[in-house]
Amino acid sequence: MTTDVNENLLAWLKDAHAMEQQAEQMLKAQASRIDHYPELKARLESHLQETLGQQELVEGCIKRLNGSASMMKDLAGRMTAFAQAAGGMTQHDEVVKGAIAGYVFENLEIACYTSLIAAAREAGDTETEQVCTQILEQEKAMSSWMLNNLPTVTRDFLIRSATPGQKAKV
Amino acid sequence: MTTDVNENLLAWLKDAHAMEQQAEQMLKAQASRIDHYPELKARLESHLQETLGQQELVEGCIKRLNGSASMMKDLAGRMTAFAQAAGGMTQHDEVVKGAIAGYVFENLEIACYTSLIAAAREAGDTETEQVCTQILEQEKAMSSWMLNNLPTVTRDFLIRSATPGQKAKV
Repeated sequence: MTTDVNENLLAWLKDAHAMEQQAEQMLKAQASRIDHYPELKARLESHLQETLGQQELVEGCIKRLNGSASMMKDLAGRMTAFAQAAGGMTQHDEVVKGAIAGYVFENLEIACYTSLIAAAREAGDTETEQVCTQILEQEKAMSSWMLNNLPTVTRDFLIRSATPGQKAKV
Repeated sequence: MTTDVNENLLAWLKDAHAMEQQAEQMLKAQASRIDHYPELKARLESHLQETLGQQELVEGCIKRLNGSASMMKDLAGRMTAFAQAAGGMTQHDEVVKGAIAGYVFENLEIACYTSLIAAAREAGDTETEQVCTQILEQEKAMSSWMLNNLPTVTRDFLIRSATPGQKAKV
């Protein structure tokens, strides 16, 4: 059985839309729980706004291809338990694990848009290619920020954690 | 309740060991299923060998801190469903989704070792810091390769997929 390039492109755009909905849930949950790491909280909140814009951009591509955004499936669906756990963790090191999970989710997004750009190019769909390139830049910026900030979050957590009377978890 | 820096470091090293065991399972399953993407298969197989070495290195750090490698838990545990799905997928676009998942897992490893390096430094554990730095370089190289290769895998999949009589899935 053969599958047309456009069919694959549309299916992957739907996956990307589901992934951005997952990202929205995770970012909202994480940002709302953080109390003692203000820079991280602010960056999560600003990326949440970007994420809402990305959802609309991807939806626009899906509509142009005569599709409708479907229920979550495939890889983003399989990341759900991970993303949910990252959004509301119970461990004492929640902030560190959450920062790691946020970075990992950004890289799921980076990979999906990198693949989508190749697919849009193969399909000759310049508009989708441009939209995905624009979103990819935002994801890369967020990913870099999260990784660069991770040693600081780790160190701050360890110091707070070893100090009597300080809350370190979030 | 306070938690000592060394306690956190040991717990995170155990997480890293569990993560490398997950990586081993995923890489083995993926590499064994791939038929038509020889470069990807070869890279997965060579990283599997690196992964086995990383397990021993991390185990050495755990033993030096008087710990024993425990059952998988935390974040790596939550990635299990994702990693298992990535190791033996049933979708028609398995090779593309698998390549994305492999890249994502590499970035979980990158984040964990980046955090561990900061923790080892905070604990004054130079040997663990060096081991984690060495492993981090291997993970970064694998991550870059996977992302650079993804457009080619995507394009090859789309072309095979649209060609009657060709197998595109793996």
